[in-house]
Amino acid sequence: MKVLFTTLRRRFIGSPLRPPALNSLFNLFCPRKYEAERAWRLSSSSILGPDLPDIWKHPSSAPPTLPSHSTNQGCDDLNPTIINGKIIAEEIRTGIAAEIRQMKDATGKIPGLAVVLVGKRRDSQSYVRHKIKDCEEVGINSFLDELPEDCPQDDVVNAVSNFNKDPSVHGILVQLPLPKHMDEEKVLNTISLEKDVDGFHPLNVGNLAIRGREPLFIPCAAKACIELLLRSGVELVGKNVVVIGRSRVVGLPTSLLLQRHHATVSVVHAHSKDPDRIAREADIVISAAGVPNLVRRNWLKRGAVVIDVGTSPVEDPSSEHGYCLTGDVCYEEAFQLVSAITPVPGGVGPVTVAMLLSNTLDSAKRAFGLS
Amino acid sequence: MKVLFTTLRRRFIGSPLRPPALNSLFNLFCPRKYEAERAWRLSSSSILGPDLPDIWKHPSSAPPTLPSHSTNQGCDDLNPTIINGKIIAEEIRTGIAAEIRQMKDATGKIPGLAVVLVGKRRDSQSYVRHKIKDCEEVGINSFLDELPEDCPQDDVVNAVSNFNKDPSVHGILVQLPLPKHMDEEKVLNTISLEKDVDGFHPLNVGNLAIRGREPLFIPCAAKACIELLLRSGVELVGKNVVVIGRSRVVGLPTSLLLQRHHATVSVVHAHSKDPDRIAREADIVISAAGVPNLVRRNWLKRGAVVIDVGTSPVEDPSSEHGYCLTGDVCYEEAFQLVSAITPVPGGVGPVTVAMLLSNTLDSAKRAFGLS
Repeated sequence: MKVLFTTLRRRFIGSPLRPPALNSLFNLFCPRKYEAERAWRLSSSSILGPDLPDIWKHPSSAPPTLPSHSTNQGCDDLNPTIINGKIIAEEIRTGIAAEIRQMKDATGKIPGLAVVLVGKRRDSQSYVRHKIKDCEEVGINSFLDELPEDCPQDDVVNAVSNFNKDPSVHGILVQLPLPKHMDEEKVLNTISLEKDVDGFHPLNVGNLAIRGREPLFIPCAAKACIELLLRSGVELVGKNVVVIGRSRVVGLPTSLLLQRHHATVSVVHAHSKDPDRIAREADIVISAAGVPNLVRRNWLKRGAVVIDVGTSPVEDPSSEHGYCLTGDVCYEEAFQLVSAITPVPGGVGPVTVAMLLSNTLDSAKRAFGLS
Repeated sequence: MKVLFTTLRRRFIGSPLRPPALNSLFNLFCPRKYEAERAWRLSSSSILGPDLPDIWKHPSSAPPTLPSHSTNQGCDDLNPTIINGKIIAEEIRTGIAAEIRQMKDATGKIPGLAVVLVGKRRDSQSYVRHKIKDCEEVGINSFLDELPEDCPQDDVVNAVSNFNKDPSVHGILVQLPLPKHMDEEKVLNTISLEKDVDGFHPLNVGNLAIRGREPLFIPCAAKACIELLLRSGVELVGKNVVVIGRSRVVGLPTSLLLQRHHATVSVVHAHSKDPDRIAREADIVISAAGVPNLVRRNWLKRGAVVIDVGTSPVEDPSSEHGYCLTGDVCYEEAFQLVSAITPVPGGVGPVTVAMLLSNTLDSAKRAFGLS
C-alpha cells in the first residue's frame, strides 16, 4: 500500500493535476515519517529566514540630534566635490560610440538592445524613451515591443523569447515594474543568460559573489556606483563602506561588487537597529533605500563620500511636471559634512544608463567574437 | 582583410588552438579600436576589483589593549552558554536517520553520497573517514573513489562524471584541497547542480543571495552556523553580525544567509582596517578566518554571541597526534566576556557534517519525488 501511494505521489509531483488529498492519504499510511520530520526540522524549515518586507520608518523632518561625540562636526565647510554623473556618463558614452564605430568598420555589425514595455506608466515610458535616445546617440540599434497593460503574461514571455532568438539583439530589458497580475520573476527568468544586460540572472549574481569568477553582466546601478567612485579617485581597498538598502537591483549587487574591491562592507536595511550609528562609521555611504531624505547629517561622518542612488518622485507644485526627483540623502545637510557627494538628479542615474549601453556593447562583442 | 581576421578570430574563440598571434595581427589592421577602448575603459577594466590574497596579520600573543571605554568589560563572569555542537549534531543525525528509515519503508530506496579523494593527505583522509562513518550511522549509502596524488585531472573529472550519471548517488563531494597541478574550479564545475551538496555552484550561490529564491543546496558550514544560532534561541532579525573571513566555503555563504534572516551584516577580512573595532560593535561574531586565536577579548563586546568556525591544527607535543585543533577565537579570553560561545573542537564542525547528511537527504527526497 505504501509503495502504491509513493508511486502515485511521484507520478503527480510537479503536475497541476496532483490530487490534493494524496498527501493526506500518504500520511495516513506513513504517519511516522512526518512526525520525525517535524521534530528535527523545527529550525531547518526556516533556514532561509522569515519573509519580512522592507518598510523603512519615514524620516522625521525635524533636525536630527547628533550624538555627543560628534557635535563639532559639520560646522566648517569642507568644500565637497560634487561628483558629476552627467559628465562621467558623457565620457563613457563617447568611448562606447567610438568602439561601436570601429566595430561596424571591422565587422559590418552593431549592437542591439531590445526593450519590452508593458502598460502606459508615465515614469516607465520616460525611462524607456531616455534609454532608446541614448542607444541612438552611441549607435546601438534599439527595438521596442510595447504591450497593453491588460495583456496576458504569455504575451510578455513570447516577446522576450522572440528577442532571445533574434541574432541582432544582444541585450534584453523588461521595464519594471510589470502590471500586478504578472510574475516578474518568471518573466525575467525567460531572458537568455547571454542577453541578461541587467545582470539579474542568479548565475550572474552567483558569479559576481564568488571571487575569481566573472559574471557575464554586472547590474548597471552597482557598476555605476563603482565607476563613479573609481573615476573620482576614491580608494576602496580596506575602506568601511555602508550600503543602505539590499534590493536585487542595487543594494545586493553593489555590496557584492564592493567586496570584490576589498572594501569592508556593512549592509543596513529597514530591519537594522541604529542604521544611523552604523552609517556614521563609514568612509563611504552608498544609499539605495528609495526613501527621500532618509539619510540626515547624523548618519554621516565628517569627510565621508556619499553616493546617492535613490530617485523618488516627490510632489513639487513649483516644478514643470508637478514633482521633482529626490534622493535618499538630505543633500543640504550632507553637503556641509562630506568630502564628495553625487547629486540627484545628475549623479548615479545617467551613469546607470551608460552602464546599460556598456553591457550591451560587451554582449555584442562576445557575440561577434571580439571580446 | 578586417573581415578575414574577424572571421578567423570568431572561429578560434574558446578553442585551445586559437593562435596567440591572431590578436596582434587584428590590432595591426584595426588599431584605432584598441586605442578607443583603452581610453574609456580605464576603470571599467578593473570593475571586478584587484586580485588581493587574504593574508591576515598574525595575532600577537601579548594581552590585547582594550580601548578606554571598555576597560571595565570582562571583570565579572557572565556564565556563558557553551553551545554544544556535538549534542546538536546528534539530534540532527537522529532526525535524519528516522527520515531515512521511513523513506526506505516507503520507497525501498535510500540516499547515497559519493566522495572523491585525491592523494594521501592525512587530514583529508581523516575528514573523509568521519563523513563516511556518519553516513553509515544514519543509513546513507557512501561511495568512495580514491585516486593517487599524481593522477591526471581528467581522472578526477571522470570520477565525478560517473557519479553524476549514477542514480543511486544524490550528493557528490570532492575533498579539498586538490593537488596543486589541478584546477579546483574546473573539477567542482563538473559536479551536477542537482548533486552539489556542498552548495558551491554559482547558481546555488546566486539563489542564496537573492531574497525570495531557493537554492537547491546551502553550503554546509553556513547552514551549521545558522542552525547553531537558531537552536540556541539567538534572535537574528535586526542584530548586528560581524562575519570574519569571506571564503566561498564559509564567510560568503554565511553572510548571505544571515542577510536572509534580516541581520545587519558586516564582513571583515584581511584587508579591513580596524577589524577589532568593527567586531566589537557586533551582537554576534562569526569567525571563519582560519587564523588561530585571531579574535582576542578586544574584538568582542560584553554579552556577544560567538560562533567559531576556525579549526586550524596547531602543534602540541602533549597531544596524542602531535597537534590540536584551534579556533579563530581565543576561547579563554572570550569566555569571560560573551553570553554564548561554540568550542573548538565540538562546536561548528560536527554540525557542518550533519548538514552534509541533511543536504544529501534533501537531494534524495527531490530525486524520489518526496520533497
